[in-house]
Amino acid sequence: MMSQHPETAPRPAISLQPEEGWHCQHWFYRFDRQALRRLSPAERKQACEEFLAVLSPSPESAPARFQSYVIMGHKADFGLMMLDADPLKLNGLHHRLMGSAMGAALIPTWSFVSLTEVSEYLHTPEAYAERLQKEGLSPESPEFLQRTSQYAKRYEIMRKQRLNPDLPDWPAFCFYPMNKRRRPEANWFMLNFEERERLMAEHGETGMKFAGRVTQLVTVGIGLEDWEWGVTLWARNPQYLKDIVYRMRFDEASARYADFGPFYSGYRASPEQILDHCGIR
Amino acid sequence: MMSQHPETAPRPAISLQPEEGWHCQHWFYRFDRQALRRLSPAERKQACEEFLAVLSPSPESAPARFQSYVIMGHKADFGLMMLDADPLKLNGLHHRLMGSAMGAALIPTWSFVSLTEVSEYLHTPEAYAERLQKEGLSPESPEFLQRTSQYAKRYEIMRKQRLNPDLPDWPAFCFYPMNKRRRPEANWFMLNFEERERLMAEHGETGMKFAGRVTQLVTVGIGLEDWEWGVTLWARNPQYLKDIVYRMRFDEASARYADFGPFYSGYRASPEQILDHCGIR
Amino acid sequence: MMSQHPETAPRPAISLQPEEGWHCQHWFYRFDRQALRRLSPAERKQACEEFLAVLSPSPESAPARFQSYVIMGHKADFGLMMLDADPLKLNGLHHRLMGSAMGAALIPTWSFVSLTEVSEYLHTPEAYAERLQKEGLSPESPEFLQRTSQYAKRYEIMRKQRLNPDLPDWPAFCFYPMNKRRRPEANWFMLNFEERERLMAEHGETGMKFAGRVTQLVTVGIGLEDWEWGVTLWARNPQYLKDIVYRMRFDEASARYADFGPFYSGYRASPEQILDHCGIR
Amino acid sequence: MMSQHPETAPRPAISLQPEEGWHCQHWFYRFDRQALRRLSPAERKQACEEFLAVLSPSPESAPARFQSYVIMGHKADFGLMMLDADPLKLNGLHHRLMGSAMGAALIPTWSFVSLTEVSEYLHTPEAYAERLQKEGLSPESPEFLQRTSQYAKRYEIMRKQRLNPDLPDWPAFCFYPMNKRRRPEANWFMLNFEERERLMAEHGETGMKFAGRVTQLVTVGIGLEDWEWGVTLWARNPQYLKDIVYRMRFDEASARYADFGPFYSGYRASPEQILDHCGIR
Amino acid sequence: MMSQHPETAPRPAISLQPEEGWHCQHWFYRFDRQALRRLSPAERKQACEEFLAVLSPSPESAPARFQSYVIMGHKADFGLMMLDADPLKLNGLHHRLMGSAMGAALIPTWSFVSLTEVSEYLHTPEAYAERLQKEGLSPESPEFLQRTSQYAKRYEIMRKQRLNPDLPDWPAFCFYPMNKRRRPEANWFMLNFEERERLMAEHGETGMKFAGRVTQLVTVGIGLEDWEWGVTLWARNPQYLKDIVYRMRFDEASARYADFGPFYSGYRASPEQILDHCGIR
Repeated sequence: MMSQHPETAPRPAISLQPEEGWHCQHWFYRFDRQALRRLSPAERKQACEEFLAVLSPSPESAPARFQSYVIMGHKADFGLMMLDADPLKLNGLHHRLMGSAMGAALIPTWSFVSLTEVSEYLHTPEAYAERLQKEGLSPESPEFLQRTSQYAKRYEIMRKQRLNPDLPDWPAFCFYPMNKRRRPEANWFMLNFEERERLMAEHGETGMKFAGRVTQLVTVGIGLEDWEWGVTLWARNPQYLKDIVYRMRFDEASARYADFGPFYSGYRASPEQILDHCGIR
Repeated sequence: MMSQHPETAPRPAISLQPEEGWHCQHWFYRFDRQALRRLSPAERKQACEEFLAVLSPSPESAPARFQSYVIMGHKADFGLMMLDADPLKLNGLHHRLMGSAMGAALIPTWSFVSLTEVSEYLHTPEAYAERLQKEGLSPESPEFLQRTSQYAKRYEIMRKQRLNPDLPDWPAFCFYPMNKRRRPEANWFMLNFEERERLMAEHGETGMKFAGRVTQLVTVGIGLEDWEWGVTLWARNPQYLKDIVYRMRFDEASARYADFGPFYSGYRASPEQILDHCGIR
Repeated sequence: MMSQHPETAPRPAISLQPEEGWHCQHWFYRFDRQALRRLSPAERKQACEEFLAVLSPSPESAPARFQSYVIMGHKADFGLMMLDADPLKLNGLHHRLMGSAMGAALIPTWSFVSLTEVSEYLHTPEAYAERLQKEGLSPESPEFLQRTSQYAKRYEIMRKQRLNPDLPDWPAFCFYPMNKRRRPEANWFMLNFEERERLMAEHGETGMKFAGRVTQLVTVGIGLEDWEWGVTLWARNPQYLKDIVYRMRFDEASARYADFGPFYSGYRASPEQILDHCGIR
Repeated sequence: MMSQHPETAPRPAISLQPEEGWHCQHWFYRFDRQALRRLSPAERKQACEEFLAVLSPSPESAPARFQSYVIMGHKADFGLMMLDADPLKLNGLHHRLMGSAMGAALIPTWSFVSLTEVSEYLHTPEAYAERLQKEGLSPESPEFLQRTSQYAKRYEIMRKQRLNPDLPDWPAFCFYPMNKRRRPEANWFMLNFEERERLMAEHGETGMKFAGRVTQLVTVGIGLEDWEWGVTLWARNPQYLKDIVYRMRFDEASARYADFGPFYSGYRASPEQILDHCGIR
Repeated sequence: MMSQHPETAPRPAISLQPEEGWHCQHWFYRFDRQALRRLSPAERKQACEEFLAVLSPSPESAPARFQSYVIMGHKADFGLMMLDADPLKLNGLHHRLMGSAMGAALIPTWSFVSLTEVSEYLHTPEAYAERLQKEGLSPESPEFLQRTSQYAKRYEIMRKQRLNPDLPDWPAFCFYPMNKRRRPEANWFMLNFEERERLMAEHGETGMKFAGRVTQLVTVGIGLEDWEWGVTLWARNPQYLKDIVYRMRFDEASARYADFGPFYSGYRASPEQILDHCGIR
């Protein structure tokens, strides 16, 4: 029950790698058409080749996860999402792109720097077992054992999907950052844990209604960048992006407590498809 | 009454095309006069020709709907509005423009990425029939049959005009995005459906007063872009744009619950007229 | 008392010209010193000549009203204000300037797109006559006839000065846009007409105190541009610009209900004086 | 007691010079290193010479007051402050700088356009005499005569220092603009004069505590530019800039009623020192 | 008890050096890839050499403290933090960098100008002794002497670490500016000292929980720049940056009273490592 005095606690090892989970970086770019125009045909060909080479990294230099997208609208022409234990590998890929022959024709218009994490509102197996007991289930009963064992497996899957996620292969993509409000009348950080947990559970249930149509990954930017969280959505149809975000806006967690940043939406596209769609090669 | 468990529900097909309706993109551009100046007369002639070619697409490559405008003021010189089932066709037309010989002299200053949709506040024929019955009309009566049949026709027209709209041929154009407020004292998303429906009905009645002078199309950006909705207005005279927006500002739905983004206004103009008006060719 | 059903009302003619009054455009520009430096002496001379030619339009191509100013501070070097029934004539003059040999050295930093209008708070002669009667004056009395006749003349002058204003020949100029607040605690658009009228009358009285020192023109941008109204002030001395705006800020209409945009101030200057003051020729 | 009807009041003369006091302009600039790099050594030498020439104006072309500063941080490299009865002399000096051979390598990043004024909260000698009488002092008493005579002298000094100030020769400089709030819960412009006077007196007392360490000049931008007032501070040590602004933030006039704009701080520097510090020559 | 009249107080010496502590400047930069591309290989080599030379200053020209970082995300590629008694030495290093052959390829994207200071909420040894006495400890007791002597030593260390800090050698870095709110419902500057002290003590305790994992330095920008305070964090693992900022957000001092500016995060890197990571040399 007593916490060790911090000064005498063993100092954690120095490392850029989080204790669990990955670093995550989202990048958004626009092509500079005047810079492109200044390239000779040979230079442009070279620029395209280097663009493709950087965005098709070899297994040893590739981040653990990597996707690319064409982005709709004037805010960006294409985007990248990448995850890895090493933040410099992610940032380094961006700099290899900018240092390539295409780099002078690219404008990085936005980015989001974050970490994966297990939500504090996700019940641990221990918390789950405790709840079963509170509900009157004997820890010696077969049902208790079966349910805690099932939950432990499910928990491991959820945990892995949060910390070291597989990115779905669905075509429609959306990213937006968000903060929780700290206003006098609606201050998320003045709510107690139980109230926040209740609101997040309601919010999670809304998300569950879109299972099979939309997948979500929340990464945390707090302490690393301007926004507190980043939400990445993948959908089987762009209409579901609209459906889920509209529906969720009525959840109290959003309606009262969320401030949203810019939305970047688009479609999965290989580096080759990006160049083709944007008419670069 | 029981909803199927989402995990076991059949997964919808993967597609970029919404289940109903179209994608919509508004684009606004400014000419870069320094870049234009750097073009030789021959290059400039070529730039104009390619500009016209891209903005006069062949029937097979053209979006389902397409209009162009000259825009007043410093925020943009001209604008495009296009709708189609395929979002990449809309975005692709923008990239063909940017990839053309004119592209290096164009600055995309703003855009709006959205979907058409039927308003959830538009009564379905079923809801209409139910209301008639509640009002005491027997579902076997000839009046019931006549009115429901009439409404069904009218509903189909309204529905089609929302999902796959014909764009009016009126000269004055205005576009602006909007959000519904989520403030403690005026939180649209904390209102119940009936209250929102009442406010939208009042708002709709104001719009009806301008029938024959102003036509409106609301498309939804939520989940796709920074703003929740985009409003496109066409008028027979620019004065009516001022009249309707001023009048609507007093509706409670606007006065209490709406935040407006930038307004882009101008006049229908063919690509040739854009080049002439702006003194480009 | 019954309003004609809109659908069956005769459709107004299609026109870019407002039913009454004029379009108005304010434009603000900065010289691009790097672009100027790239011009040869001959090119620069040509740029100056074309600058002067565009801003000294022939009577047939000139807008109905036209003034030019040097602007103080970094937001702009000079500004234009023009009014005409044809919006494309106003916007076209801007594009002729941008298409001139000086155009590549000009940065349009801001603009305001609006219409002239008669304030809804200005009493019509009919309303004035009604008020006299309410005050007990017999409509057959000579005083009634004299006062209504006088008011009718004054109304026509005020109306003309609002719709088709003559611009005063005073040296000090100021322009700023404004919105009326729609906040929960101070929502202009939730006030009834009488309350708004009372506030505007008080505001108008403050303005009257500056008669002979400051002249004001309010044009309306609502439905056409980001801000609802634009206020143009002319003064015989720049100090009076400060005096009137400071004094008016205490009016309840401003203190509680107004949000102000950027202020552009400067001094009447011919196109030649603009070039001389800015050291361009 | 009766005020003359404005329409019949004699019209004031047309002039750019305020009835009392001076115009004031603050300017902030950054060097454009790419533009500098494009200059040949001879051109760069010429640019430096013209920079020094413009910023060392001859007595007849110099503004009544003129100071220059190196500015800390990325918002500006250097700044100017100048006062004169003629606003075009101040703005003209800026344009001579921009039109010089250095001009294409300068980016004007910010400015503030204002007028000097006597605070309406400064008691006139008449008000002072009235107060003494109210306190029971006979206007015939020697004490009354002595005190009013002393105050009259002190008032003239304060008035002159406000309207035609001498700029102190202290090294640390800070400038920031400010507005008084017009929020429902804290609306400066809805307070009566006595309340505002009380708050400003308290604020002034805080300022007095820094006499000998910090000097302040408040100029008014209202009606001329985006912000209502501009505050210029000079200190014998940069630490006092922090001390006074921190201390004043607790005054009710600041804590409840002030909104502050960007802060520009730096150090007195001759034009030669600016070029040396920034490594330009 | 009586304070000396300020006018007669001895005037402090004129100096740019604060009476105690140091000036501090944070700088953030992005490489301009188009400018880099315009350099010949020899010029680029020269640019890299000068970049390294400026950022590896000789002991006599080096600031008292100096660190460099690679920054994650699009807001900056690298950053510097430096402290010294002389503000022109800090700003001068920036200008030497901008004046170097690399300068034309650098964009200074942000900066923070501040001073070190001892928090007014840190108890002085005198205040500590007073508190002990209030708690009933006799000033003649050995315990009193021992504890005050211990506190005096600890105070000196804390004071030195605030005014002339050693910068920790930990890899993860984060910087963000902050203001205390002055809103009607949460006005930091309307709280009395005891309440602010209580809130800061609670906040400090949260910080103590991260001892050994995170080190913090708060510098003050008030009176010198747009934001009131700047917070620099160093961590042994980037995850702790997230952990501490997330945890602290629940402190009342943050949850109710803090507004945060942009966050810049990254990793300690030598100038050579910056060039290598960004692919410049």
